[in-house]
Formats: sequence, C-alpha cells, structure tokens
Amino acid sequence: MSLLSALDQRDSAARGRELHGFAAQLYPVCRSITGEGIRKTLAMISERVPLQLYDVPTGTPVFDWAVPKEWNIRDAYIKLPDGQRVVDFRKSNLHVLNYSVPVHARMSLAGLKPHLFSIPDRPEWIPYRTSYYRESWGFCLSENQLRALEDVEYEVCIDSSLEPGRLTYGEFVVAGRSTEEVLISTHVCHPSLANDNLSGITVATSLAQLLAGKDLRYTYRFLFIPGTIGAITWLARNQEATANIHHGLVLTCLGDSGCFHYKKSRRGNAHIDRAASHVLCHLGENAEVLDFSPYGYDERQYCSPGFNLPVGCLMRSVGGTFPENHTSADNLEFIHPEKLAESLRTCTAILDVLENDHIYRNLSPYGEPQLGKRNLYPASGDAMDRAIHARLWVLNLSDGMHSLLDIAERSGLPFAAVHEAAVALHGGGLLSLEPDSGGEELRHAEVTRWGGKQSS
Amino acid sequence: MSLLSALDQRDSAARGRELHGFAAQLYPVCRSITGEGIRKTLAMISERVPLQLYDVPTGTPVFDWAVPKEWNIRDAYIKLPDGQRVVDFRKSNLHVLNYSVPVHARMSLAGLKPHLFSIPDRPEWIPYRTSYYRESWGFCLSENQLRALEDVEYEVCIDSSLEPGRLTYGEFVVAGRSTEEVLISTHVCHPSLANDNLSGITVATSLAQLLAGKDLRYTYRFLFIPGTIGAITWLARNQEATANIHHGLVLTCLGDSGCFHYKKSRRGNAHIDRAASHVLCHLGENAEVLDFSPYGYDERQYCSPGFNLPVGCLMRSVGGTFPENHTSADNLEFIHPEKLAESLRTCTAILDVLENDHIYRNLSPYGEPQLGKRNLYPASGDAMDRAIHARLWVLNLSDGMHSLLDIAERSGLPFAAVHEAAVALHGGGLLSLEPDSGGEELRHAEVTRWGGKQSS
Amino acid sequence: MSLLSALDQRDSAARGRELHGFAAQLYPVCRSITGEGIRKTLAMISERVPLQLYDVPTGTPVFDWAVPKEWNIRDAYIKLPDGQRVVDFRKSNLHVLNYSVPVHARMSLAGLKPHLFSIPDRPEWIPYRTSYYRESWGFCLSENQLRALEDVEYEVCIDSSLEPGRLTYGEFVVAGRSTEEVLISTHVCHPSLANDNLSGITVATSLAQLLAGKDLRYTYRFLFIPGTIGAITWLARNQEATANIHHGLVLTCLGDSGCFHYKKSRRGNAHIDRAASHVLCHLGENAEVLDFSPYGYDERQYCSPGFNLPVGCLMRSVGGTFPENHTSADNLEFIHPEKLAESLRTCTAILDVLENDHIYRNLSPYGEPQLGKRNLYPASGDAMDRAIHARLWVLNLSDGMHSLLDIAERSGLPFAAVHEAAVALHGGGLLSLEPDSGGEELRHAEVTRWGGKQSS
Repeated sequence: MSLLSALDQRDSAARGRELHGFAAQLYPVCRSITGEGIRKTLAMISERVPLQLYDVPTGTPVFDWAVPKEWNIRDAYIKLPDGQRVVDFRKSNLHVLNYSVPVHARMSLAGLKPHLFSIPDRPEWIPYRTSYYRESWGFCLSENQLRALEDVEYEVCIDSSLEPGRLTYGEFVVAGRSTEEVLISTHVCHPSLANDNLSGITVATSLAQLLAGKDLRYTYRFLFIPGTIGAITWLARNQEATANIHHGLVLTCLGDSGCFHYKKSRRGNAHIDRAASHVLCHLGENAEVLDFSPYGYDERQYCSPGFNLPVGCLMRSVGGTFPENHTSADNLEFIHPEKLAESLRTCTAILDVLENDHIYRNLSPYGEPQLGKRNLYPASGDAMDRAIHARLWVLNLSDGMHSLLDIAERSGLPFAAVHEAAVALHGGGLLSLEPDSGGEELRHAEVTRWGGKQSS
Repeated sequence: MSLLSALDQRDSAARGRELHGFAAQLYPVCRSITGEGIRKTLAMISERVPLQLYDVPTGTPVFDWAVPKEWNIRDAYIKLPDGQRVVDFRKSNLHVLNYSVPVHARMSLAGLKPHLFSIPDRPEWIPYRTSYYRESWGFCLSENQLRALEDVEYEVCIDSSLEPGRLTYGEFVVAGRSTEEVLISTHVCHPSLANDNLSGITVATSLAQLLAGKDLRYTYRFLFIPGTIGAITWLARNQEATANIHHGLVLTCLGDSGCFHYKKSRRGNAHIDRAASHVLCHLGENAEVLDFSPYGYDERQYCSPGFNLPVGCLMRSVGGTFPENHTSADNLEFIHPEKLAESLRTCTAILDVLENDHIYRNLSPYGEPQLGKRNLYPASGDAMDRAIHARLWVLNLSDGMHSLLDIAERSGLPFAAVHEAAVALHGGGLLSLEPDSGGEELRHAEVTRWGGKQSS
Repeated sequence: MSLLSALDQRDSAARGRELHGFAAQLYPVCRSITGEGIRKTLAMISERVPLQLYDVPTGTPVFDWAVPKEWNIRDAYIKLPDGQRVVDFRKSNLHVLNYSVPVHARMSLAGLKPHLFSIPDRPEWIPYRTSYYRESWGFCLSENQLRALEDVEYEVCIDSSLEPGRLTYGEFVVAGRSTEEVLISTHVCHPSLANDNLSGITVATSLAQLLAGKDLRYTYRFLFIPGTIGAITWLARNQEATANIHHGLVLTCLGDSGCFHYKKSRRGNAHIDRAASHVLCHLGENAEVLDFSPYGYDERQYCSPGFNLPVGCLMRSVGGTFPENHTSADNLEFIHPEKLAESLRTCTAILDVLENDHIYRNLSPYGEPQLGKRNLYPASGDAMDRAIHARLWVLNLSDGMHSLLDIAERSGLPFAAVHEAAVALHGGGLLSLEPDSGGEELRHAEVTRWGGKQSS
C-alpha cells in the first residue's frame, strides 16, 4: 500500500485542523537558536513522536563555527514615566531583538532610537530581528508604535541572560529495510512566526507520525534543529553518517496559500530532485521547480561543497519573497488548515516515489505479451485506456535500465499510474523485480563528494 | 543518381493515379489477419513485385502468442421476415464483426442488439470492429440503420468458418551491396479501409518497384503482414536475422490530406529517426515528428524491448486521431492520388538520406582549399551562393567524424544540397570517401539490445 | 587590477575620438591584399605599436594556394573626349576593380560596359569589387554615374602593375606569464571602407596598446593581415605554433551602430565562446551569439578542420548583412567614435574573463564558513546583498571543479562580481587558488585536432 493511500484513510479536513491546531499550540513560545524556548518546543513535538534530544555545550567547535552561549529571556519592555508599557514582550515575543543581552536603564528617546527597529512601509507589522553573533540589544515594534513615542525618558528593560549553556536539537529515526536514509530537516528556532516555520514543524511531525511503524524501504531521519548553527552542529557531529543520506528534504513555509516550490539540491539531478519535480508537475495546479542557490534554508549547509548531499527544499511561498516573512504578519491567520494538509500530502507523494521507484524487468520482452489472455487488457473506456497505456509503457521500458520514475518521466504519466501498472503486471507474472541496487541515482547524477575527484 | 531523381523521371500525377487505382482494386477484398482475403491481397501485390509467401500453421507458438485459427467468410446478413436484407455483407464487408464465428438463427431485436455495433454521433458511418482472440459474432451498421430496425423477428446469418489453417504473409527482398537491411513493413489485414491501410500497401508496393533492380547500398526487406500477430510471427521466425536490420519504417495512413507525421523509434535518436526528421523538416510544409510511444502500429512490436529495432512509423494523419479511422468513411474518397504520390516521394527522400549518408574526408584541411582554380567557386547568384555554402560546410566538417547528415543538421541545409556538394568536391579531388563503417549511428545512439547490459 | 579598470582610467569620449581619428587617417589609403597600400597601413599602425613585419615572396606555396603577384596602382580614370574625367580614381579608390591589370585604351561605351560595375538599387553608392585570382580589369561607379555616360569614345586608363613581389603582414606579440596564446586577428586589405575594416584595425591597435607592458596571464599575438590569403599564409608559416593558441578573436565591423554579435568558433563551446557569450549576455543591451558557419572573415581559416582553433569573431553588424557593406557608403560617417570606444571596452571585458578565470578551492567546505567573524558578511543593502550572493556562490561551487566562469554561468551573476567575490574570499583566507592547469576548457570542449581521432 502506498503511503498516500495510508494518509488518505483519514479525512483531509480533520488533518488540516489538527496541523493548524498544533501550530497554534506552538505559536506563543519564544524560540531562539538556544534556550528554554526550543527545549519546550521539542518537548511538545515529543508528545507526538518520541524525539531523541541532543545537547551540545556552548563553545563546542563545529567546523568553522562554535556553539554560541545560551540565550534565555523572561520579560522585556519599554515603559513611560507613568509605568505604562508602550512596548511589551508579553504581547509579542517579536518585540525583543532575538539574542538581546540584558539591559535595564532609563534613557531619552534619542538614546533609545538606535535600538529600535520597525518597517516604515508596513506600519502595523512588527519586524523579526536577531543578533546571534554580535552582542547587542534592541526592540522591534510597529512603525505606528514608533511614531507614537514621545520625547520623554523611558524605562527600558530586557530581562534576558546570555551565558554558557547548550544547544539542543531533536532527532527521530524510523528504521526501514535499508540503512540508506532519507533526511527530513526543519528549523525550530523562530519565535511566533507561523509559516516560517511552525508550518514546517507541524508537517514534519505529522509525516513522522505517518511513517512510524510502517514497513519502509528507506530509513527516515527527522531533524528538528535551530537554523544554520543547528544544521552545522548536526553535520559536524555526524560527518561520517552523512554517507547514508541518499535523499533529503528541508521543509519550510508550507502553510500559506502560495503555490508549491521545490528548490533543487546542488546536484540538480539527484533522485529527490527528479521525484519532487515529477510530483509537482503532476499536481494539477501551478507549481515551480527552482534551481539550487546557496542562500535560503538549511539546504545551504547540507549542500555545502564538502557534503554536497542530495537535499532539496519544499516550500509554498519562497522564504524571503513574501512581505509577511519575518514579521508579525506571519501569524496563525497567514497559514491555512487545508494548505497544511495539502503540503503533507505532497510530501507524502514525493516519499511514495522514493519508496516505490524500482526497476522491473519484462519477462516477455520479444514483441508485446498477450495481455488479453491474462485479463490485463480489459474493456476500453478513458480510465482503462490510461491504464493500458501505462501497462504498455512499463512493458516497453522495463529492460533492466529504466526505473518506474524513468518510465513516468518519459511517458508523461503520473508515477502512481506507472506504479499501479507495474504492480498489476508483476501480479500477472509479466515482470520480475530487479534486486534493489540503490543505484538509480548513480545512473543519472554525477555524484561528487569532496575530494572524490582526487581519489579516483 | 539519387532514388528521388529516378522517381521523378515519371510524371507525379500519373503515379498518383496508379497508386489510387491499385487501392481501388484492393478495396473490395474482405481481409482479416488470416484467410483467403489476405492471400488474395498478397496475390495482387505479387503481380507488381514477386513476393515470397510464407504460411504458418494455426497453433504455432510465436513468443507469448499462438497463431490463431484461420477465418473465412462467404456471406452475412440480417433479414426481415419478408426476406429483405437490412444489413448485407455484400454491400460492405465492414458489416460483419471481423472474426465472427458462424451463426444462423432467428431472433428478436432484443436478442440481436448485444451483437450490433454503431457510432451514435456519426449516424451514417459503419464502424470497423474485430474480435480476434475472444470467440464472438456481431454486425456493424450505421446508427441510422440501427435506429430503423423494427421490433420483429430477424433471420441472422454469418456464413463464416474459424478453423485450423494458416497465417500468411509476404516478403520481398531487394539485395543491396551490404547485407545490412532496411525494413519496410505494412499491415495488410484491414478490409475495405482505404487510408488505414490500402495507402500503406500501395506506397510500399510502389517503393519496392522503384528499388527493384537498382544498385543499392542497403538490402531492403518489405513485409506485407497482418498487424500485431503478423509482426510477432515474423519476429519469432526471424529472431536472429533482426540483427541485420539497421533502419526501418512502418508505413500507414499515407493517403489522406493531413500533414506528415513521423513517429520515432524507441531509441529516439536512431539514424532513421534523424533521416526522417530531417526530410520532414525540409519539406517546406507542416510536418510533425512525434516521440515514440508503445501504442500505434507494428513499430510497437519491432520496438519491444527484446528487439529495440531502429524502426519508426511514417504517416500523414496519425491512426486513432481522425474520426474516419476504423469506419466506412475511410473509403476511396478519403485518400487522394496526389497525396499518395507525395507520400511515396517522402519515403524515397528518406531512403535517399540512408543510401547517401557517407563520411567524407577533406584532403585539403588546412585553411580553405582554393575552389576557384578548380571551377568549384562559380559566379554568384542565389542558387550558387547556396551551393557554395554547402561546399564550404562539407569541407569544414569533413574531418572523418561528421557524416553528410551530421553536416546537413548542423548547417541547416537540406541533405540533397549537402550531398550534391560532396559529390562535386569529391569529383574535384578535394574529398575522399571514408570506408563505409556503418557506424554512423553508433556514434549517436545508445544502442541497447536485450541483455546487452549484462554482457558488457 | 582588471584590464577594464585600466581602460576606464581614461575618458571614454576621448578614446572614441582617438579611435575615429586613427580611422580617418587610414581611410584614404588604397589597400589591397598586397602592395604599397598595405605596407603604408602597417607603417601607420607601427607608430602606435611596434609591429614585426613579414614579407612573403610571390609564388610561395601556402597550403592549397600560392602567394599572388603584388599589385600596385598609381592612377585610373575614364575620360571624355574633352579630357574631363568622368570616373576618377583620385576621388575614390573604390572606382577601380581591385587587382585590375593595367589598361590604356580608347573604346566605345559598348566596349567599356562589360568592365563597369554599379549597384542599380543604390544609385548613389560605388560598389567595392575585387578580382584577385582571375586577371581582369574594371571600374566601379555609382549607378547615377553609369546612367549619365553618353555614347562617345572614352579614354580608359588603369595605371597599375601586377608583378612578382611580396605579401606583407604585421605581427605584435605581448608576452604574458604563460606561453599559451590569445590570437587577435584583423584584416587590413580593404581600401576606403570604414566599418569593414578600419574599425577592426583601430580597435585591435588600441587593444594592443592597452595590453603592452601589462603583467598578463596569457601571451597575446596580434595579426594585421590581408584577408583569406594572409590568414592562410600566416597559418602555413606557423603551423606548429598554432598549438599554443588557446583562445582567439577575429575583430571586424566594430564601428557601426548595430548591436554586438559574437560568432562562435567551430568548436562551439570553446572557452572564448563561453567568455564572449557571457560578456555579451551581461552587456545590458541587445546582443546576439551566432553559431559558427564556414563563411565570414578569417575565422573560416583558423577554424578549418585541420586547425580547428578556438577562434571566434566579434562584430557589431554582421559583415554581408548590412547594405552599406562593400560600398562607398561604408565611410567615416558610418562609424561612430562612441561605438568604437564601446567595442574596445567589450573586447577588453572578454579578455578580462580569460585573464581571471581561475579555479579556487574552498578551504572551509563543510557547511558555510562564518563570514561575519571575518568581516565578509557586511550590513545589507542591495549592493551588499549582491556581493554576499556572489560570495556564497563562489564558496559553494569552489570545489576544485568549477572555474569562476562556471560559477558566473550557473549563478547568473556577471563575471566581474564573481571575480570580486573570489578576490575578497581569497584575501580572507577562505579560498586557495588552484594551480593554473590551463585545463578549464578541456573539461568543457571536445577538443579535436586533425588526425587526433586516429592517434588516440
């Protein structure tokens, strides 16, 4: 049974509500790349899938970086002389510059201004800003709030701490028949921002729930990590193990109403690139496949030249291109239950291609076999014509050199139809299944590992 | 001398009339995949080219199939109680479901109806239907005829026989200088249907007449066979000999007024694919090159994965896409003398490419040779400019690695112009002819034979 | 420092005036493929760059050709009975059929007419005609002049000589760090024709002046040669040395107001083809890249199959496609100072790509390096965003297998931006420079030398 049919056993609307409900639970937490917020988030995910948590101490060298100090925050505000909070962390955790060092002082508006950030042409939105690697403090507020500030003396307080501690991330592994792995990675470091990236967290969590306990071809490794430094930390601690990663997806921005975008891995023709492109192309709606570029989400780490992993990125709207991104407008209204459910479905369809893309061999390759005598050539009609076309394509191209995805690509038929045809023909004794070489991609991609050129 | 100039020695209009006249002779015969109709047809072709006939007994295993029983028919009708024939095989052999088992009975309209086939939205046309591999009987009639049937008792008679016998096909071979073969295959199993496929039969016959007795590079093998089972039977009996087939064409639907379509072989880049695409591209009228698909005519057998022969299919309108196909409207008015003549000409032009696509070597490769002193750079003018361009292209690319077709493709010039240039330069001592390696295609196509992967 | 920044130290308008001024100086000289005109032209170039001059005696065999007799001319006219010159060489050197043998005779209009050439549909223009290899004489005149000729007896005189002598060409070499050469070739045989090819001569001369004395990666060889026979002569005398030519450009038609055209070398994917295409694509204005064809300028000799050198041709309007070409309308008004200056700039930009297209290696290839701590990730803004993108691209693709041009092509960024990024990252210790393999092209081009196929 395909993963998709397992998924579809449940009502899509209910699933959408569940995804959005989980996002709503996660929304208020003030996350950052370290600290209690991320640990609370991982604990909430663990209630659904049993994450393995890892702590890495501040100062641990990870390639060109070091794990930073741990940041925690309790409160922050800007108060008028009368004690009224004009900017209040309790109302939105975006109000504080993420990773602000502690401050408690009285200062004039002029003294405060260099520490205030707004978006002049979106006067109602609070921007999201960070300063992870340069010690600083600041407040983010709407342009309207900023304009309303009078020239008085303010009490300014950020009750935070920035101290040696640890960086925490979560991992969940679903073992498959093969030790070859599919990596699913999503960042968990953003505070109250819904599309970027509660959508990624909730879709990845549901995907993990769907896969858990299934009989799977591949082993699936889910990473819930802080962006950039988390991916770099994970890579530094698992450098050897990355050789097992045969396919991978970064999940982000999956709840908005934009069309799907798949950004290819650096290789450009990895199996995951072909699988995702194929699925998007057959969605029956707009979708776009983008070439790799070395900016974006954590695919930039997985696709750094020393690793060059076959990891792409699935999104709806592309991070950095929609105005709500990294602002308070990326809230729970910006993401939609049905879009989250559809995103989960698209991820699942992509994994179905990976799981079922086998090479079959036509056992009757000289001329067409007589389908009629095996009841494999049923009466016509549009649906049957399609089914027969798929069967003829599978028979014609199953020469030991074409996988089902190859056949789907050449025939223009959706993978699911080709897969169904192969199952029917295999059942009818007309196909044998080639041993799983895992080599499909090798035939297509010029696989380049760091140093591989010299050693060959 | 090119084949085309041999062809053009005769008036094209006369040739068109002859082709159409032969189709008219063949039209009344009730053909099927076995039986007297096909033998009568092969006898009529034999009056023009001396066919070698082959008989294969019923029951002979041919790959996944067996040669079916032989079907013959003498008469068939549906009679009113007053003896009047309301459906009469003598008026059109399409009226009987091809391969109907014998029946003679009286029955009500209700009992008869499951055995009647019409085309509701083409009320004047009789459909063409077969039931080769499931024993059955039936009548095909126009929707108007069907609607006029009253609720009376009918006498129903199909005076046919379906008994052990033989499958017959015809072969005609024109020996060339090389044992490498060009296969020309056309189906001869359709009753009174003109475009599909009396057009193919008549064009193939004329092509055979044109080639007979010529000094040819390749050996040409013409097959006049019943569709599907005939091709499979031939392949089963000639499995080893298929290694000689270097190029091939299935000819069908060549008389209607549609534009030319060439459907590529499974290989997609076989020499025949390039030759046919090139000729169609330079016809000076609309033409379309289609990718291979495993449904259509007998190319699906020749291109089955065990054989993967370089055989494409030349058509005007594509079978299955025009409403007249497989109906009584595919009659002698549907095909046109001038279209048949033009189709013969296009086939011939394709064969001219195969015959003349040699590799030459520039004997003066350092700088341009001085054409003027050899009278190879004549006074200008549009025609001469084209001739000079062709000569310069041939000189520039004749480095032992480009055939004339390569040069035609790269230069955008028609093959005939490039060939003329090569002949002139060869005459002027500026080119040598490379030994005929027959390897042109090897440089271009990934040639895959069944099992070839394992043995390498 | 890039060549472009060296060029841009001087005012572009002044440079344009200088280029046009030099063209104006050269304009009146009556050049041909041999004779005093070409020697005078080479002397004028030598005042700017110290040319090495070569003389090759008449009759010297050069491949399929022989060096022709030397042609010189002092005067030519057609006189009315009253002594008035109706066609006068002193007014335009185009009036005489180039390479006319001497003649002095009286003749009727009827006798004269076969020796007169005009352009009927451009009644005011004098055509430019030659007869190098068939001894002949004639006059070129405007259609208006021709029509005005009355039926009287004319005195016809061409005071020329065609005698054993020599063919002269000039060479200028700027030695670089490598003995690998860039060939810059331009023809110097046309009389008073400005775009074709005083523009090429002046741009090539200025380019030579720019390069002289610079520290260069490549050695640059400038050829100022008569068209066709000059290139063939040079190739015949330097056959072995052509192995050093790694890149090359023929310069012609660079002063008119048409957009840039780059015609690729026969190889089609040589490094010069990629460099020139890239530069034209990023010009920010219309530009066209044309496939190779074996007619045009001297690239047809350099790209003859025995040499197959990586030499393309840079033009504005393509020779042979503009009506002024090879007529008196290709005069000093037809070329423009600013267009000449821009052409020089485009040539220089192409050479900058050749000079700076190195392969770097990312020294921190596992994950992204931390740019911030090295001040390589400065505050944002549009320009900085572009700079950061370029740096991330260079880091991501500098795996020892991608040159800067590869990176520019894949990223869509202009080469200059990619080069700047590499210099900054190299300065920051994040990149090492791979040893100059000179092998960039080998990875991309199928390099074919004559006979190379056999020997391998």
